[in-house]
Amino acid sequence: MAKQIPDIVIGRLPVYLRALQQMLAEGRQVTSSQELGERLGISAAQIRKDLSQFGEFGKQGTGYNIEYLANQVREILKVNKTWEVVIVGAGDIGRALAGYSGFSERGFKIRDIFDNSAERIGEQHGEFVIKDIATLKSEAHAAGIKMAMIAVPANAAQAVADVLVDAGIQAILSYAPVNLNVPPGVRVQNIDPSIHLQRMTYYLTE
Amino acid sequence: MAKQIPDIVIGRLPVYLRALQQMLAEGRQVTSSQELGERLGISAAQIRKDLSQFGEFGKQGTGYNIEYLANQVREILKVNKTWEVVIVGAGDIGRALAGYSGFSERGFKIRDIFDNSAERIGEQHGEFVIKDIATLKSEAHAAGIKMAMIAVPANAAQAVADVLVDAGIQAILSYAPVNLNVPPGVRVQNIDPSIHLQRMTYYLTE
Repeated sequence: MAKQIPDIVIGRLPVYLRALQQMLAEGRQVTSSQELGERLGISAAQIRKDLSQFGEFGKQGTGYNIEYLANQVREILKVNKTWEVVIVGAGDIGRALAGYSGFSERGFKIRDIFDNSAERIGEQHGEFVIKDIATLKSEAHAAGIKMAMIAVPANAAQAVADVLVDAGIQAILSYAPVNLNVPPGVRVQNIDPSIHLQRMTYYLTE
Repeated sequence: MAKQIPDIVIGRLPVYLRALQQMLAEGRQVTSSQELGERLGISAAQIRKDLSQFGEFGKQGTGYNIEYLANQVREILKVNKTWEVVIVGAGDIGRALAGYSGFSERGFKIRDIFDNSAERIGEQHGEFVIKDIATLKSEAHAAGIKMAMIAVPANAAQAVADVLVDAGIQAILSYAPVNLNVPPGVRVQNIDPSIHLQRMTYYLTE
């Protein structure tokens, strides 16, 4: 694809895909940009414009075939395959992520969970035995892992990010509430519940 | 404040605040829109423009006093006070949230954790005894709770959202990977790790 797609458009595609998967689960076959927009609080025009960046997915007046569109979006996002992901940090959040059943149908599989605590290493958690972070680099290289999640305290997160970058990881989802520095070519997304809560308090009436 | 501030600006303020708090923790006293921008991957002009919506926080050429600016942003976001939040769902994610120590310095306090499972209700988890969701409405009303987090499976989330709305909750942070329908005046934010992961796979080289 020669054309550069704005990152903000890429960011909306997973949200469209989730809504499409939800519609499929409801037994639906056809939808429209209007209906999608109403579900998501996004204008129909925005959805049509976003999708038109990638081609023609629906016929004027007949709407979108949901399964076809979902498959196309999966292909665009490269989640028509399964990506293995490693977790660093075997505390409450890391263990909750390791046990989360929602990844498989979205294109992801947790491969391993790592920690640096002697007490945790070797511990069984569900199907995982918690591994020593010292082995992460060689394991990730050998298996060609590109994605990781960080679930360590804020003050340890940058050091973990450095280890991940050194191990060839290209995409990091961090649950640590700090801004991570990574070299160009490595992507970081953050999940920080306080950020989301603070975004809503502005609107609350006391 | 008579002026309507765009929601996208409000959405960036918590990110600025987190960076300011991080700088304070590093013992820093003064910063600039340039430095903040570099940390956050946002242009200095954007930061100046966002902050100028709310007043004049720095002097040309001398930068921002970090503590002063952080306090002003806290006041704008109304997190210069502590908001009590209830959690619904006492599974792995709900329990991890209940035990998360990062809320207190960001303006939030977990008040209670609710579930509908007879096995979980009454169970002790850390400082919390898991409560019956049937009591949520009366407790939330009595205590004037405005905020909640949903940590239940996708197929149960809408019913929980309905209970929360009925209980007077105005802001919901949902960890369930579905789009929730709520009436106008109720805000919803979603945290769904697959959405963040899918936003990055587009850029990965296989």
